[in-house]
Parts: sequence; C-alpha cells; structure tokens
Amino acid sequence: MIMVDVLGWDIGGVNVKTALIKTWNGSVKELKTATQYFPIWKRGKEQLPAVLDRLRNEVAGSIKLDAVGITMTAELSDVYWTKREGVNHVLDCIEEVFVNIPIFVLDAEANLRSVEEARHEPLKVAAANWPATGWMVSQLIKDCIIIDTGSTTTSIIPVIDGNIATAGRTDLEKLLNGELIYTGSLRTNVATIVSFIPIKGGVARVSSELFAQSGDVHLILGNIKEDDYTIETVDGRGKTRMEAMARLARVVCADIEMLTEQEIVEIAYYVYEKQVKQISEGLTQVYNRIKLYLKENIPVVVTGLGRNFLAKKAAQKAGFNWIIDLGGLLDASATVASPSVGVALMVASELEGKVVQWKRL
Amino acid sequence: MIMVDVLGWDIGGVNVKTALIKTWNGSVKELKTATQYFPIWKRGKEQLPAVLDRLRNEVAGSIKLDAVGITMTAELSDVYWTKREGVNHVLDCIEEVFVNIPIFVLDAEANLRSVEEARHEPLKVAAANWPATGWMVSQLIKDCIIIDTGSTTTSIIPVIDGNIATAGRTDLEKLLNGELIYTGSLRTNVATIVSFIPIKGGVARVSSELFAQSGDVHLILGNIKEDDYTIETVDGRGKTRMEAMARLARVVCADIEMLTEQEIVEIAYYVYEKQVKQISEGLTQVYNRIKLYLKENIPVVVTGLGRNFLAKKAAQKAGFNWIIDLGGLLDASATVASPSVGVALMVASELEGKVVQWKRL
Repeated sequence: MIMVDVLGWDIGGVNVKTALIKTWNGSVKELKTATQYFPIWKRGKEQLPAVLDRLRNEVAGSIKLDAVGITMTAELSDVYWTKREGVNHVLDCIEEVFVNIPIFVLDAEANLRSVEEARHEPLKVAAANWPATGWMVSQLIKDCIIIDTGSTTTSIIPVIDGNIATAGRTDLEKLLNGELIYTGSLRTNVATIVSFIPIKGGVARVSSELFAQSGDVHLILGNIKEDDYTIETVDGRGKTRMEAMARLARVVCADIEMLTEQEIVEIAYYVYEKQVKQISEGLTQVYNRIKLYLKENIPVVVTGLGRNFLAKKAAQKAGFNWIIDLGGLLDASATVASPSVGVALMVASELEGKVVQWKRL
Repeated sequence: MIMVDVLGWDIGGVNVKTALIKTWNGSVKELKTATQYFPIWKRGKEQLPAVLDRLRNEVAGSIKLDAVGITMTAELSDVYWTKREGVNHVLDCIEEVFVNIPIFVLDAEANLRSVEEARHEPLKVAAANWPATGWMVSQLIKDCIIIDTGSTTTSIIPVIDGNIATAGRTDLEKLLNGELIYTGSLRTNVATIVSFIPIKGGVARVSSELFAQSGDVHLILGNIKEDDYTIETVDGRGKTRMEAMARLARVVCADIEMLTEQEIVEIAYYVYEKQVKQISEGLTQVYNRIKLYLKENIPVVVTGLGRNFLAKKAAQKAGFNWIIDLGGLLDASATVASPSVGVALMVASELEGKVVQWKRL
C-alpha cells in the first residue's frame, strides 16, 4: 500500500482517546487525536458506542478507514462484573460502530489479534494499552525505561534491545512489579497518596473521603492550568485556584477560614512529593530488576500529561539524569494519547508490511 | 419538672440520627432512636429539612417536645463552601422544622448553646458530636478512654475524673492528636487504608479508585451481616458476600476469575488488620499523653457499629485488657447513635436542673 488511514483507540474507564494516522509511502504524514472524558460508571456503558462514533467523526469525518486498532482498560470498571464481560462489551461496541472495517485488538504481548481471538482470551487483551506505547517508543529508542503518567495511572515500561521487557502482563502482575503505579496527574484521591500531613507544627491524619484529587494539588502548585484539568472536580465546583484550595483544606477536615494560603500550599507540596516518591519507587524496582541486562546508561522517556512535573521528577529522584520528553520526539498531542497513537502505528505497519516511520509533522 | 420529652440529633453528612428521650422523675423511662442514611452531597442539602421532619415523626410522632438538642458534623461536607456556611444551614433547617421549641446546640467544650450563640461562633459547634458521647459516658465511668467506631470515623475520647480530657476541639486538632481516626466500619475506601497488599507471593500496590469500602471487608469476614451494611455499595450492586468479593478483588485490579476465594479473604484480613492498627495507634497516642494524669488502670469503653470488631480489637492490640461494651451499660440501639442519645440526655438534664439518670430500660 502507498497510503493507509488507520484509527487507533485507547478505550479507558475514564477517558476514551483516539488517533487518526494517515501514512504515505511508509511514513506518517498526518496525525489527529481526540479525547473524550467519559467516566463509564457515571455516564453508563450503553453510551460507549455513541462516544466512539462522535470521536470517529471528530478525527476521521467521512474518511474511509483501512483498519481500526484497539487497546482497552475500561473492562476494569465496576460497571462490569468481570474483565471477561468488560472486554466483550467493549468489542461489541467497536463492532457496532465499525462495520466492514478490519479490527485489530492489541494484547499484552504486543501482538495484534482478531476480535474473535480477543473474545476467546479476554484476559490477554485486558488492560493492554501500555504495550502500544512501549512498541512505539521501542521503534525510536532501543534501550530505555518509559514512564507514562496519565490522569489516573502511571505505567513504567522497560525496553531492552528494542523489545518491551516488562515482568508483568496483567495489571495485577504490574502492580506487583512496580510497573503500574495507580497515581496520576488529575484523578488520584489525595487520601490514597498520603495518610498523614505535617501541619500546624504537628502531623495530622487525613480524612478518607474523596475531598480533593491530584488535579487540585497540581493546579494549586501551577503544575497544570485550568485547561489541563479536563475532568470533573470532586465537589462539582469550579477549577479556580481558590476552589482547589478549599477542596485540599478539607482533606485535614479544615476549610479556607481555618488555614492560610501558605499552609494549603505546603499541604500541596507535601502531597506532590509523596506522589513523586510513589513513582520513583516503582522506577527503582523496575530498574533493579533489569539493570543486569543493560549494557550501559539508559534514558528515561517520559510521556503523558504528568510527564514533566511527575514522571521527570520521579526519574530525577531515582537518580536518572538522562531524561527524554517524548513530546520532543513526536508531537505533544501524541504524548497525552500515546497508546492510541501507538496502536494506530502498529496497525498501519501491519498493513504496510513494514514499520511505519515517524516523521516530525 | 417531673416529665421531660427531648429529641437529640446527630446531623452528619452521611447519616442523620435522632434519639427521643422521655424522663420521669429524673430518670430515663423511654428511649427511641432512628437513623436515616443521607449522603448530603448526593441527595442535596435542600432535602435536609424533610429528613429531619421524617425522623421526628418516626420517633416522636405528635408528642409535644420540651426541647431539642443538636450536634452536627454535616458542615464538613463539600456541599458547603466553608464550615461557617454549613453550620448556619443546618441551624436554618432545624429552626424551620422546630418552631416554638427551645433548641440547644452542643459545642466542643460540651456546653449547650443557643442557636444565636452557635451562629456567632460556628467553629465552636462544628464537628461537636463526640462531646455528647463523652459527657454521657463520663456520667457512668469517671476515668476511661472511649472509642466510638461508626460507619465512617473513629473518635477516641479520654475521660479523666469525670471530665472530657481531649487535647483537640476541632477535627483538625483531633486528627493531630490521635483523637479522630478517619476509618470506620462501612464507608472507608480500602485504598485509603492500605497502599500495598501481599498477594501471589509478592506485594502489590493498590488501585486508588473507590473500588471497595470497609463494609465489603467486614461482610466478607463475617464481622457484619447484610442488614448492618446500611449504606450504598460503591458499584451499585448488592450486598452478598460474592458481590463484596468482586469489589475487593478489583482493589488489586483483579476480578473473581483471577483470584480464589481464599486469596480474597486474605486481602480482607490484611485490610482489617491495618484498620485495627490505625485505631490502636491513635489510642496509644492518646494514652501516652494522658497516662501521667491517671491514678490507676483504666478501662476502654467501646461504642458504635464497629465497637466489637474494630474498637475492641484495637484496644487489645494497644495492650488494654479492661474493655467495656457501652451496649452492656446502655442498650444496643444507643451505641450506634451515641451522640444523639448523649445530647438528648444533656438537654434533659439541663431542663431538670440535675443529671438525668440512666436506668436499664
């Protein structure tokens, strides 16, 4: 083929992301991404086909697609009784929206499978969005550790000799091996990051309610802007710094009349540090496992919304000084939707019969 | 007065509880309690007067009340911008429902105040339900430490020489001093109790989503029955043991097809132990502060829904062997609504001009 038009998907329980890739003679000539915030347990799983259709229209319009590539994590949501049920439902929705278009489903071994194969072994394709990112980066850098810090989770993906070298395949295995850290730029309940907070000269326990999330912390500290805060706030109020401070004060059962701005900013810094520590500990665990197989010093490649203020800081804390921003290799829009771009590239390469090259767009 | 009919209230952000007390010649001759699950941020604060009215009808019917006593914690909810706003709104609702009836509001010093005084110093009456429990127990036992483990939080209240001897008055001060542990029998997000879980021969990080709560843990372990699980489940499914196991499995991003029953039960035990540890650490912190003032060995008095499986276990873990179940001194219904019973007794005593005696009903 000379031209290939492929749509890649990262179908999560909180965000659905898509990437259209148009290739020309084995190189990417156009990339277009779109994201819809879609908390599936709030909006209802029956809405998923409409979300897929809307995003398809946004990025692909009436383009005749050559194929569709799928990664998913939505099957973990508790709208599904089991992952098996979730995987099958996501596949049902995809088949409903993409009729007469070849569909490829990525598995945790970074292989593209048919829908039938995916239905036959649903646990193999569950939570398998990170191999798309791993594969994409491995085409650019042969030895590295990738840290993808999104809104909700952080994936740490070692790449050795151009191959993904994770110890875990399932989420559980990755949680055991430091390759999945359930902490992110926006959605993480502050009470799951810290159990104690230094304040008023002492150390306070925290409320276990969902009073503030990591997005509030990073908004207060200026790590993100209001526009980056693409999810709902936990109290339904706005995204001004003052509103975020009111939420964070509540984590120690206080309010903005009881704490000064400085005290609330100090809470934010403390939570931020703990989040960096969570990620750096995972990175160290991964590095310690693979370091014997490495020939030399390797870079850490950071991607995702939190790539600079979380992933990069964590890498520095863990002692890495060679850090590459994936946004400098691809373009920034690709870094906040890495799995959808990655799986689109994989499918395009499959159709081309050779690895599609990334050209700076 | 020979007869006094008083309604006590514990107006929380999750549960609203009331207790009707009828006295005769300075003794309690009737007690009736009622609770309504009312998550104020889900149902809407404008529903509060209707809830108060419904509960009043349930326990008091058309009885002409001599007075009403109020404690509240609902002002912490993020439906209110500040505690000041919350306290005033709760008082508005009370005044709307109880017209021409004397209203007393308890403050954190265990003093009964007028509504006007409460509005003038709202932070003094915010989160002041525990002094009602402290006062009530202090009339029965002069030296002790009370542990009240409810659905959401645990209050630890030292009583010395018949006086409440907490170091903290506000929630924040109590969080600093080990007197408020934000862990409870039903509503605590498991991801705020544990950051790691031993499983499959390793140690897994946990998901930071709200996938399971402490009620699931205690249902799985048989610490509570389905009838005790009086709140909503986090996934909207039922309260069978199997459904609770599915929720708990998700905390390590697994499901009931990936984990055995035994593995899920082991997770539940691990979370349970950590919860006991949270409370026992608070108890030890409180005890270490007051032990110089104590003449002799003192008992721990346990109350609340979690009094046996959490509070008592925590006391034992902290080395206490003299443990008194408040349900053995009062009746069991009073232990799950201690603050509302306590404030009703305080108001009745105020009207009688002497402390109303508790008689086994």
